[in-house]
Amino acid sequence: MTPIRIAIVGVGKIARDQHVPSIAASADFDLVATASRHGSVDGVPSYPDIEALLEKVEHFDAVALCMPPGPRHAAALTALRAGKHVLLEKPPGATLSELDDLVALAAGQRVSLFATWHSRFAAGVAQAKQWLASRNIRSVRVDWKEDVRKWHPGQAWIWEPGGFGVFDPGINALSIVTEILPMPIHLTAATLQFPENRTQPIAAELTFADAAGERATATFDWRQTGPQTWDIRASTDDGDLLLQSGGARLTIDGKMVVDGRDEEYAGIYRRFAGLIAARESDVDPRPLRHVADAFMVGRHAFVEPFED
Amino acid sequence: MTPIRIAIVGVGKIARDQHVPSIAASADFDLVATASRHGSVDGVPSYPDIEALLEKVEHFDAVALCMPPGPRHAAALTALRAGKHVLLEKPPGATLSELDDLVALAAGQRVSLFATWHSRFAAGVAQAKQWLASRNIRSVRVDWKEDVRKWHPGQAWIWEPGGFGVFDPGINALSIVTEILPMPIHLTAATLQFPENRTQPIAAELTFADAAGERATATFDWRQTGPQTWDIRASTDDGDLLLQSGGARLTIDGKMVVDGRDEEYAGIYRRFAGLIAARESDVDPRPLRHVADAFMVGRHAFVEPFED
Repeated sequence: MTPIRIAIVGVGKIARDQHVPSIAASADFDLVATASRHGSVDGVPSYPDIEALLEKVEHFDAVALCMPPGPRHAAALTALRAGKHVLLEKPPGATLSELDDLVALAAGQRVSLFATWHSRFAAGVAQAKQWLASRNIRSVRVDWKEDVRKWHPGQAWIWEPGGFGVFDPGINALSIVTEILPMPIHLTAATLQFPENRTQPIAAELTFADAAGERATATFDWRQTGPQTWDIRASTDDGDLLLQSGGARLTIDGKMVVDGRDEEYAGIYRRFAGLIAARESDVDPRPLRHVADAFMVGRHAFVEPFED
Repeated sequence: MTPIRIAIVGVGKIARDQHVPSIAASADFDLVATASRHGSVDGVPSYPDIEALLEKVEHFDAVALCMPPGPRHAAALTALRAGKHVLLEKPPGATLSELDDLVALAAGQRVSLFATWHSRFAAGVAQAKQWLASRNIRSVRVDWKEDVRKWHPGQAWIWEPGGFGVFDPGINALSIVTEILPMPIHLTAATLQFPENRTQPIAAELTFADAAGERATATFDWRQTGPQTWDIRASTDDGDLLLQSGGARLTIDGKMVVDGRDEEYAGIYRRFAGLIAARESDVDPRPLRHVADAFMVGRHAFVEPFED
């Protein structure tokens, strides 16, 4: 099969760390160009923006949009209008409402729109989902604690309105939770901690309920130095589940059943190739919807200033 | 046709002002009971809560849930499980995510779920929608300015997390805008003004875009004394539209074409009867989604304390 000719738009940390090597390792895709104000990839033609890319590169099929969420919608509209398949980095937009345009346009153009949630492709997630599907869940507990200075060095946009603050990593936990739980959940209480000098939260405490009552809680914290924690626990009538390392390691009743490497983006590109082959889209707003709900119903607390 | 036997849950200001007289005036409905901690309706059996209502009243078909959004989800689940058709006052919930449960349950129970947006039933809205459908819109401007002390006397919940603050009236404007505009819109910028002593905003400035660029702005303000303003303007290539009085009056190019009375709730109950007859649901989350987006991407500003 001829590889899918893809361009990356927005060459920053996530593009270099994940998208470029995953595309290079995939037999399904060829990276034919990049568009970015500052970044480029050695040996690949680069353009300043998506408009120049579309004008100069005659034949290509798909784009991966890796810029921050703010400008992502305009780029996605431009790419979809040009008839390209579109992969959106997470979160799929700065707002929930902007997805309506994109979904409608992708359907009209008969191209694939893939709103990715990379943590759903962590090695232990599929098996965790399968294990939970047939069990009665008593409680779910999420601890997502990392050092913002280590993972987002100098990324000013995460502290600006629309940057999401600690929900930028926290939405990864929510993307796993919404994938593995067999029932819909909704927030019943949230406390968001804002540094006095920032517009976005550095920590959050969340409580979720489903039709059976409150069963899930989550703590997101960006101030964790030392060991980093990305854990999801589920207690059931029939044993306990523990997902660690952001979903890569799965332990059931104390026994390690998956201890995977980080291959999330390989999974993303396999899935994107499959969607393109089937001319299907995959746009799940639920993780972003929980974040919007948290901003809407959350109680705000103010904590000490954060200096980068 | 036998009238639909309906109960009201949550007998507060909106139930007394609107639901009770609208049901009384409707040939489609009979009010058979109420459930409320404090309120009741003269001559109608009253119960302390929905559980007692369901236990004591043997035959009825539908409930109108008129309590604040916080407890609405639990009551809706209870009513749907009991096989009742459910009308939700606006907003349909405290969160967007909690609608998933309700939509799924209503479908499974083969009953009608109606998430009402009363302003959509204002006299000029349907004609405004029709007029805009075929025109090229240049700009949309919303001014929604009222005196919170007049319209929400002593309603403490509107100032609590999940109470929405000025978005409680503002969502009415958003429900009209999303109904009459032929294209989807999404927020690109928002500033929310919070009184220093309150957790919810007292004013908001919003900018919206669609696929053609930024075309809509809105000002919500709860500090307006004197004349109250609930206006939506749209400028098109083919003339200007002005909706006033919350949608009741429609002026096109300076000529008044609709000058209606307040009959919003009569329209709501006609529509609910139609949905029940067809066993259909009507749940549009878009107005609430714009509010959640505004809380998520909005810049916060702090203004002088508000004392009720």
